[in-house]
Amino acid sequence: MRTEPLHLVFSALEWGADRRPKYLQLYDHIRQAILNGQLRSGEQLPPSRVLAIQLGVSRTTVMQAYGHLESEGYLGGHTGSGTYVSEQVPGRLALSGLSLADGPLASDGPLLSERGRAAAGFQAGGWPKAQNLRPFRPGVPALWDFPFSAWFRLMGRQSRSLGFEAFGYGDAAGYMPLRRALAMYLRQSRGVRCEPEQVIIVHGTQQALALSCQLLLDPGDSAWIEDPGYNGAKEAMHLMGVRPIPVPLGREGISVEAGMKAGPEARLAYVTPSHQYPTGVVMSLGRRLELLEWAARQSAWILEDDYDSEYRYSGKPLAALQGIGREGRAVYLGTFSKVLFPALRMGYIVAPPALAEPFQRAKAFTDRGNSILEQATLAAYLEEGHLERHLRRMRLLYKERQEALIHWSEKLLGDRLRIFPSDTGLHAVGWLPEHSDDRQVAAQLMEAGVTASPLSGYTQQYRQPPGLVLGYAPYREEQIRDALERMAGVLEQLPA
Amino acid sequence: MRTEPLHLVFSALEWGADRRPKYLQLYDHIRQAILNGQLRSGEQLPPSRVLAIQLGVSRTTVMQAYGHLESEGYLGGHTGSGTYVSEQVPGRLALSGLSLADGPLASDGPLLSERGRAAAGFQAGGWPKAQNLRPFRPGVPALWDFPFSAWFRLMGRQSRSLGFEAFGYGDAAGYMPLRRALAMYLRQSRGVRCEPEQVIIVHGTQQALALSCQLLLDPGDSAWIEDPGYNGAKEAMHLMGVRPIPVPLGREGISVEAGMKAGPEARLAYVTPSHQYPTGVVMSLGRRLELLEWAARQSAWILEDDYDSEYRYSGKPLAALQGIGREGRAVYLGTFSKVLFPALRMGYIVAPPALAEPFQRAKAFTDRGNSILEQATLAAYLEEGHLERHLRRMRLLYKERQEALIHWSEKLLGDRLRIFPSDTGLHAVGWLPEHSDDRQVAAQLMEAGVTASPLSGYTQQYRQPPGLVLGYAPYREEQIRDALERMAGVLEQLPA
Repeated sequence: MRTEPLHLVFSALEWGADRRPKYLQLYDHIRQAILNGQLRSGEQLPPSRVLAIQLGVSRTTVMQAYGHLESEGYLGGHTGSGTYVSEQVPGRLALSGLSLADGPLASDGPLLSERGRAAAGFQAGGWPKAQNLRPFRPGVPALWDFPFSAWFRLMGRQSRSLGFEAFGYGDAAGYMPLRRALAMYLRQSRGVRCEPEQVIIVHGTQQALALSCQLLLDPGDSAWIEDPGYNGAKEAMHLMGVRPIPVPLGREGISVEAGMKAGPEARLAYVTPSHQYPTGVVMSLGRRLELLEWAARQSAWILEDDYDSEYRYSGKPLAALQGIGREGRAVYLGTFSKVLFPALRMGYIVAPPALAEPFQRAKAFTDRGNSILEQATLAAYLEEGHLERHLRRMRLLYKERQEALIHWSEKLLGDRLRIFPSDTGLHAVGWLPEHSDDRQVAAQLMEAGVTASPLSGYTQQYRQPPGLVLGYAPYREEQIRDALERMAGVLEQLPA
Repeated sequence: MRTEPLHLVFSALEWGADRRPKYLQLYDHIRQAILNGQLRSGEQLPPSRVLAIQLGVSRTTVMQAYGHLESEGYLGGHTGSGTYVSEQVPGRLALSGLSLADGPLASDGPLLSERGRAAAGFQAGGWPKAQNLRPFRPGVPALWDFPFSAWFRLMGRQSRSLGFEAFGYGDAAGYMPLRRALAMYLRQSRGVRCEPEQVIIVHGTQQALALSCQLLLDPGDSAWIEDPGYNGAKEAMHLMGVRPIPVPLGREGISVEAGMKAGPEARLAYVTPSHQYPTGVVMSLGRRLELLEWAARQSAWILEDDYDSEYRYSGKPLAALQGIGREGRAVYLGTFSKVLFPALRMGYIVAPPALAEPFQRAKAFTDRGNSILEQATLAAYLEEGHLERHLRRMRLLYKERQEALIHWSEKLLGDRLRIFPSDTGLHAVGWLPEHSDDRQVAAQLMEAGVTASPLSGYTQQYRQPPGLVLGYAPYREEQIRDALERMAGVLEQLPA
């Protein structure tokens, strides 16, 4: 039976660069030999004294390794004297012909589920990494201007005032004082109809999207997405087995008419009415009503993503679509990624009253809720008026930065980049000359040290004029000017 | 057309208890009247001066409300003089016969998706709430003995040393220093084979379960679960459209033989090999190998939930099942809910190498990653040896508490409750007299001020002898003794 003499099993052991204790290395080596079939059931191992001498280690080391293997069932009853490979192991291994310690993943079929493959088929990345935070990477607020020290002081205070029990399992739908504060904030500032019980605290918009698709749609169902639009919505849908149907935009927002043609069976529409992502179009009242009527007629859902509505630079923000109809067909999503900072990973769902409990449960079954300390800190941040003050400051700052972007763009780039002033948001679209290729321009800019997302990266099916999505919120005027100067160098070479 | 004269629209306005500014109340009232169809397209509103007198408010209030309605598109172009209801709104409303402002959710079909209904069908609750943390509620570690002040100090330090950019969007799979520290910890203490890239930081075991089911299984696929077992696994599966197949346990752990009969098509097995939840059975080496062989033959997956393996009171913990085979069919799940505290909501997946990237993406598409600050704090906690020290302290404490439970149970309850000592865990099973009904006993205990989870609450299909799952980790000896005294009062009344 044996292919190699016993001493060869041990002579192959190299202590080498391994920093683990020797007894662990020996344990591992013997275990592998058993699983490989080099050591077989019933076979006797060398006495610890003998092996210790052979390997040049202390007898204790060998005894520790043997003891450990015994406690795990690899070595068994020393009848009288001697240590033997356990009867538990190898018969079966030999029988099945499978060597558990060998080789790569053997599989006839695909490794992932269908929905897993659909999701994995996407380009990873696609969302901004903090490491490369330079103009004009979009999606990030002014991290350098966030009052972190005040935030962490508040966190420290909350950490001392929460009782021990708060650090056990809490309400998966969220910390009640936060849900109360949020409900009041959303009623007052966004015209959202809601009670605290309808508010579900989640880990950002992405989770809100994933949870909503999961709870409201079945695999194979279809849903409208704005085209161009937020790629994260598409990703969440694919992961949930839902089929996204791109619907074109008009000047008033998503075209309900086109949607009914492209996806007459759709069960949901994902929209960004306050400030369409990324074009900035504000959905008109008429279009909002049309969409609500469609949802009511079709028994479909509207996912209203209000991701940056807090940043409106003139006038009061438009009220949320959710607040218009009493039909309860709109699920409202919000995030603190733009208002505070992305790495907080905190957002919320306002579920229609009829869905509040199912959403609470779905959140519980998904991850049992958010971390308590950050929820408690955020509750205090809202209750004590810090959020309002921060938003007031940021509105001024972002407005200035948008103005700087437009001013320097006109000055340095003239007609080669046209940016229209907007009342809202953290980014703007810069339109390129008609026949340019925005992906190619973005690639050239990247080499020149400027990040700019090509608008075509947000489109699915409906071609847009070439453009660049330019985040301006986190960058100082000098940075903006410097980046536009580099951009001028690149755009000058474009055919006019 | 009109059903009521214009002045009636406004006479219905009651300022009453509403604390919002009057202009907002007026705005809301007019908006509702438009959406209700009380005010129709093209209809003229009273001049602001007139309405102000009628309502007894300042003219500014009315003008603010009008202005706001105009900016949202409800009121439109005053041709010459006067304010009119916009043309955008009501035609369509009248046509469709739908009143957007009316009534409850009208729907022909069910509100939720099939998977949503499957998940919502469960009893909510079922996991411990911190509010009722009293003996013997299981699943919670010794919160009162956790060194929160050291933890928060570390958090404060990390908050000051992380750069601003760290608070943007980071790596969705987790903060790399934490993944590195965890990989090292798991290799050394649990025998898990892994590189940092295989470690995905998630929001606790529940998310690890949900993500794994989502990525590896399709709706309609089936998966083995231990019976009795962890209810959270069943919940996650239902939410993902996966069919859980209960498989009975033997003395060596889950019965692979019975599993192959009950669910021959299963694509996954969810197991707790180190310390079966809730019975405490340790899966034998032979059974582990059998399960690994089944997975390899079947191209199925093993989800190894190692939820409390750190708490072994004598000897070294058994190595993880994941470390046995090189086949890469085991996905390893761990949590910090038992080791640190549940409200941290932090756990991890160790994906097989071939699945590391798909898991990273799935986490990104699900929620874009965990909060940075707690990850950075945890990384330092591991790197600086705090975790090891805390675990050493807790092992001693929990061992003492288990001994106290057994000691006082024998003394006060004798044969009416039999608890077998265990080398591991945060809870034990107390076996009741043969013919008792554990749910009924638990209900009586609840009234007597003692929480005890009936074992039958963890079973699906295979009847167990009556028992109670008794958490002991967070309770002091006096609390344990007191609870057992109350229990004695209840159990004495049981028929012998």
